[in-house]
Amino acid sequence: MEYKVLDKGFLRLVDILGDDYSAVKAARVSYGKGIKTPDKDKKLIFYLMEHKHETPFEHIVFTFHVKTPIFVARQWFRHRIGSFNEASLRYTELKDEFYIPNHIRKNVKEDKQKAVKVEDEDLKNMALELINKAIEDSYRAYKELLKIGVAREMARIVLPMSSYTQFYWTVNARSLMNFLNLRADSHAQFEIQQYAIKIAEIFKEKCPWTFEAFLKFNYRGDILKGVEL
Amino acid sequence: MEYKVLDKGFLRLVDILGDDYSAVKAARVSYGKGIKTPDKDKKLIFYLMEHKHETPFEHIVFTFHVKTPIFVARQWFRHRIGSFNEASLRYTELKDEFYIPNHIRKNVKEDKQKAVKVEDEDLKNMALELINKAIEDSYRAYKELLKIGVAREMARIVLPMSSYTQFYWTVNARSLMNFLNLRADSHAQFEIQQYAIKIAEIFKEKCPWTFEAFLKFNYRGDILKGVEL
Amino acid sequence: MEYKVLDKGFLRLVDILGDDYSAVKAARVSYGKGIKTPDKDKKLIFYLMEHKHETPFEHIVFTFHVKTPIFVARQWFRHRIGSFNEASLRYTELKDEFYIPNHIRKNVKEDKQKAVKVEDEDLKNMALELINKAIEDSYRAYKELLKIGVAREMARIVLPMSSYTQFYWTVNARSLMNFLNLRADSHAQFEIQQYAIKIAEIFKEKCPWTFEAFLKFNYRGDILKGVEL
Amino acid sequence: MEYKVLDKGFLRLVDILGDDYSAVKAARVSYGKGIKTPDKDKKLIFYLMEHKHETPFEHIVFTFHVKTPIFVARQWFRHRIGSFNEASLRYTELKDEFYIPNHIRKNVKEDKQKAVKVEDEDLKNMALELINKAIEDSYRAYKELLKIGVAREMARIVLPMSSYTQFYWTVNARSLMNFLNLRADSHAQFEIQQYAIKIAEIFKEKCPWTFEAFLKFNYRGDILKGVEL
Repeated sequence: MEYKVLDKGFLRLVDILGDDYSAVKAARVSYGKGIKTPDKDKKLIFYLMEHKHETPFEHIVFTFHVKTPIFVARQWFRHRIGSFNEASLRYTELKDEFYIPNHIRKNVKEDKQKAVKVEDEDLKNMALELINKAIEDSYRAYKELLKIGVAREMARIVLPMSSYTQFYWTVNARSLMNFLNLRADSHAQFEIQQYAIKIAEIFKEKCPWTFEAFLKFNYRGDILKGVEL
Repeated sequence: MEYKVLDKGFLRLVDILGDDYSAVKAARVSYGKGIKTPDKDKKLIFYLMEHKHETPFEHIVFTFHVKTPIFVARQWFRHRIGSFNEASLRYTELKDEFYIPNHIRKNVKEDKQKAVKVEDEDLKNMALELINKAIEDSYRAYKELLKIGVAREMARIVLPMSSYTQFYWTVNARSLMNFLNLRADSHAQFEIQQYAIKIAEIFKEKCPWTFEAFLKFNYRGDILKGVEL
Repeated sequence: MEYKVLDKGFLRLVDILGDDYSAVKAARVSYGKGIKTPDKDKKLIFYLMEHKHETPFEHIVFTFHVKTPIFVARQWFRHRIGSFNEASLRYTELKDEFYIPNHIRKNVKEDKQKAVKVEDEDLKNMALELINKAIEDSYRAYKELLKIGVAREMARIVLPMSSYTQFYWTVNARSLMNFLNLRADSHAQFEIQQYAIKIAEIFKEKCPWTFEAFLKFNYRGDILKGVEL
Repeated sequence: MEYKVLDKGFLRLVDILGDDYSAVKAARVSYGKGIKTPDKDKKLIFYLMEHKHETPFEHIVFTFHVKTPIFVARQWFRHRIGSFNEASLRYTELKDEFYIPNHIRKNVKEDKQKAVKVEDEDLKNMALELINKAIEDSYRAYKELLKIGVAREMARIVLPMSSYTQFYWTVNARSLMNFLNLRADSHAQFEIQQYAIKIAEIFKEKCPWTFEAFLKFNYRGDILKGVEL
């Protein structure tokens, strides 16, 4: 499963360990027949989620390959329960790939953390032109620095946060649900939300019961509910 | 793959995410073509291990089902990078299954941490009889407490450390190698060594290059080398 | 600060890093003046807790010295975010110290996970006698095994779960709040609840605003509310 | 203790939990009198380090306040065992503070991961001019975007990796030693090395025995040895 995200990014499921039934099996080891719920598998998953018994969901593990702008990657890497291997700009040259938004957002007076899309076409055009030019200039300086012999690790300091990077991410379903709680939410930045939505789709496809139980009992965000994924 | 371990225990591989090639792919994302080693896959794994670039090995993940005495489980659970779901004696009744050694070890004067097997048959018989009787008495008391109505969570406080327990363990290859460094070693207790050896066998079977590189560059223990697993 | 807990255990605060103000300072680095709440310190802590911004509380760290029965320690060590150093029965001989309850609990028909104290004096006496005798017998066998020369690590397999152990525990306030959510709750076993209550007292004493905000917004348990700590 | 690092950065020790003796006390709980080394405190620390018993060092915890360029922060945040609170460019405006190197490095043919300082003044001047201009242009575009009303979280995508950021970092001595192994080494990028050296100085000042033992038994890097910190 691979999804395009943003203008040049992607999210790709590389591999998966287990499924809904992995959580069921792990929980059955814990509780034996002593668990007070019905022993039906789906019911058990709902019981676990409702009572915040989250460890069984750690036995479901996903590996993703992600291509995303650096400012998104920086938010992503704050999630410490998981494994990352990211492309290094010390060793490899950055390709000419930058995130250029197709819209512009403004801050809102009432809430300094909020940003909303603007309709004003003039402003949008002016802003996108500024962004495009700034990024082109930065990339030209980067290429120039490499050309005259400056080390890659040093030349890259002029590169903008919109530069695309890539990484492998291995994460268990419990940590992934925490990611969705924080990033599949209107308080998260728009760009990381787009990845979170695709992660939710993959999660739903691969672990439908766990996903359903998550939405019902554990999800604290606001953009996944009521949406047809 | 399932192995019998000790008198009544087992180690069973439930599932695995990835293989040698998962580490290779993750490393390639990190280093691109910038890596200075040959791009042959096996060579790359040896390069990573030699230079202690261990994160790529986190993308290989194992789930084991383990049955082991509680004093072994207590050592096992000290390894925090991994996921555990253990049978609960609060909710389920302990079956009549206890570890009874088939040998006896004595402490050594020169090294308080060492224990060696004794040949003395009389001592062995006397010790095993004491152990057997103590465990039988404890179990009888446990059953008696349950019979008169004491809660399982309370009755179990008389149970001995040799009681068998079961758990699910999901662990990545990097953390598993750390486990082997500490437990597949003559300084570890004999009983947990037996499990570590079987884990090493499974690891070798599933990730032969990673295992070979681990033994060559990273392994700090002393019981896996030169042994035909 | 040191508290006696259960019949022979204790909980002692060894050291602490920071206080309420550490979370405030860390949050101020994150949000600068951009945060939309009033900049009063206490209000900021309430804002963080209400909105589940929990990372600032990781900069408050406690070190405890704990003495507790092994069956309680086993529950405690499931909390992986934290540092443990526990007394080893491989290297040291267990002293004659076991948890002997001063009451007896029964399971409840309706809820297999629940256990309630019984009033029946006859049952209580019978049960306590069984427990006492079982523990004495186990300890006698242990001493006998040591006497005839069996290694400490092997003799201890007959010891009961009620044996007292000791450990150092270093844990940040975020992980500690998670501990309280799970263990300062009527679904936790009675014995670990007693430690959790004392931890809550120390937490309240050292970080009064954080504790107040925790109880208001984050606490999922049921035994700390409305109680005069 | 506060050190200036690079042209506009700093490393400041905010607070510390424990010292050499904390590791000693934690180890004594583990080993009791059963440990085979002399019970002198300093000797015990050397014994622990030599035998890779690293958990006692987790009971020493540092909080640092760091100001560093974003490309350095990105390397720093890969260290998952620790707590971070970083200034957010979603909520606050970036000040006009960028890392401008005072030298230029070139890649080396033989080793794509290496970069060495160049003596060539002409090249250096040309490169620094390019860097300066690129960064000024980016910052001007950023300010312009803010001025016409673009949201901070969006405007910042044109900012370069050399932008300074700030964060709080709480980390235990074991994880800090791992940081030094990787970053106080000639294979790490020059800029993060400068921070690692100052961290080593603070570590040495606060935990002299642990630091000495670390250098002797555990340190895998190459720039701290033989240097007068």
